[in-house]
Amino acid sequence: MKQKIAVLGSGSWGTALASVLDSNHHEARLWGNVPEQIEEINTKHTNKHYLPEFVLADSIKAYSDLEEVLCDVDAIVFVLPTKAIRVVAHQVSEVLDRTNPSKKPMIIHASKGLEQESHKRISVILAEELPSDQIQDVVVLSGPSHAEEVVKQDITTITAACSDLDSAKYVQNLFSNGFFRIYTNQDVIGVELGAALKNVIAVGAGALHGLGYGDNAKAALMTRGLTEISRLGVAFGADPLTFIGLSGVGDLIVTCTSVHSRNWRCGNQLGQGVPIEDVLENMGMVVEGVATTKAAYELAAQKGIDMPITTAIYRVIYQNEDLKTEISDLMKRERKSEASLKSIEK
Amino acid sequence: MKQKIAVLGSGSWGTALASVLDSNHHEARLWGNVPEQIEEINTKHTNKHYLPEFVLADSIKAYSDLEEVLCDVDAIVFVLPTKAIRVVAHQVSEVLDRTNPSKKPMIIHASKGLEQESHKRISVILAEELPSDQIQDVVVLSGPSHAEEVVKQDITTITAACSDLDSAKYVQNLFSNGFFRIYTNQDVIGVELGAALKNVIAVGAGALHGLGYGDNAKAALMTRGLTEISRLGVAFGADPLTFIGLSGVGDLIVTCTSVHSRNWRCGNQLGQGVPIEDVLENMGMVVEGVATTKAAYELAAQKGIDMPITTAIYRVIYQNEDLKTEISDLMKRERKSEASLKSIEK
Repeated sequence: MKQKIAVLGSGSWGTALASVLDSNHHEARLWGNVPEQIEEINTKHTNKHYLPEFVLADSIKAYSDLEEVLCDVDAIVFVLPTKAIRVVAHQVSEVLDRTNPSKKPMIIHASKGLEQESHKRISVILAEELPSDQIQDVVVLSGPSHAEEVVKQDITTITAACSDLDSAKYVQNLFSNGFFRIYTNQDVIGVELGAALKNVIAVGAGALHGLGYGDNAKAALMTRGLTEISRLGVAFGADPLTFIGLSGVGDLIVTCTSVHSRNWRCGNQLGQGVPIEDVLENMGMVVEGVATTKAAYELAAQKGIDMPITTAIYRVIYQNEDLKTEISDLMKRERKSEASLKSIEK
Repeated sequence: MKQKIAVLGSGSWGTALASVLDSNHHEARLWGNVPEQIEEINTKHTNKHYLPEFVLADSIKAYSDLEEVLCDVDAIVFVLPTKAIRVVAHQVSEVLDRTNPSKKPMIIHASKGLEQESHKRISVILAEELPSDQIQDVVVLSGPSHAEEVVKQDITTITAACSDLDSAKYVQNLFSNGFFRIYTNQDVIGVELGAALKNVIAVGAGALHGLGYGDNAKAALMTRGLTEISRLGVAFGADPLTFIGLSGVGDLIVTCTSVHSRNWRCGNQLGQGVPIEDVLENMGMVVEGVATTKAAYELAAQKGIDMPITTAIYRVIYQNEDLKTEISDLMKRERKSEASLKSIEK
């Protein structure tokens, strides 16, 4: 059945998701807070700042008014920077009783990060701001997906995660088509932590590239990085095998091996010796991995988890330590064993 | 203590491993069966066919006589194409009592494949041909490691796998240094299956590239490919978490994202529409992934394991099916859930 869906966030990924929903014959509405961009989408059907080559379907309408975009929707997709999630969710909650008096919308989010200070996952923030009597459920959408390729209808597979399988399946059916394939997953903790923490490793992969290291070093960083992400995830209740899935290794591969990734580009500049302040200024977009590095470092300390790669990246970004010295120290560490189910069960 | 080590196989990886051992002040001897190459290594200290840019240390000697190279060695490293392992191991066994009367050497192998017809793992073949009263143990060396980068002393991490941790640690200590880091692993089945089966996915990744697909499609193939490899591995007794490690995802990343990989290059030509017979002729080197695709397909059938990606690649290589149709069929399959520990335990 045709669904009305509000996509909150008109960046590249929000625009791509709206476009997938439109392809599947749903009513996709985009919401943003830059009036010129909203007008551009509605009149010229382009979003040149984020997707320079792409022409949106005429049927996709953009809104700047939250009450208008939410009116009678079946689902709301949050595609916002992590730091904007709580405030926008709060605004949504304030108007939802007026805009949706007769049905409770499904909440979906496709953001990848952890809240500053609290280190909360995004589904936790959403559940705190949107009481269960206002909404159906919260489902996480995550996986290896450059927006630039999705709007070209290149093949993409991602995960819809929710502890309630029916809610996950609703989102699976909403988005699935011949070029966009969704797998369900019931391990919300693992999916959200994998999505957020892989950005830390992506910064590291970019830094190795910027320093001139090759494929072996990159694979070493990604694999051992994934191991420490899994270790932290398991300490917070995640299923270790989630990290072998689309939101774990899948997203890690795309983020660490592609020039599209802003986390990778940020690391690449660090590797070339650009100071972090200048890197962030050069980027002109949110780099989730920089904030997530701090969150991961603090969470690891809190749980007593050994995360040597995350620690090294933290020291480079936040303590001005030398990148090459950190890499050399990583290679000189005590000789170790790889992770196994047995060590996880301990 | 300085060890004498025979490296059987003077291709790119054998030469690189000999070079690491030499850097660690062991006596590294290379064995090959092309007289001109042996002479080139001993006189010019180059191995131009395999590593055009590299100059070997003078201390690395090459041999064409098996009895000579094995004389009084502490360890033997097999770095041969899968199909040559059994015959060479048999030859080694025949001479070992004469060459090594006073000590049993450690057997190490760094080959990635499964035996044709029998589908046996390489450590199984070695144990069959080399009785336990002749050798110490069999240790598998595997992980993301382009020889071209190892000889440049770029950073590399790999796994030494043996059910006996002391044997694994002996190999770890033999090879470890500031640019080459070894992790031990006790899951030999998982390490060998990961190493062999990832070549199937590498052929697929090359094919997607040859067809013009982007990063999302590649990450989808690699992630879902890894899932089905893990499924097959678990059916044969592997620890599923081994596939998140260096011989699983690590090697998969390096093989699928690098132009060095011959499996990837083979797939890339298939994707560009070159018939498989011509591809194999063009390559001029062994492409393990082509034989392993057949082995994996047959093992999956034997265990009743669903391996849709492997099956699609098998159909393209061995049944002349159309690549694009196979990809489109993969995307149209029944909507599914991702793997979890719960589904593995079932």
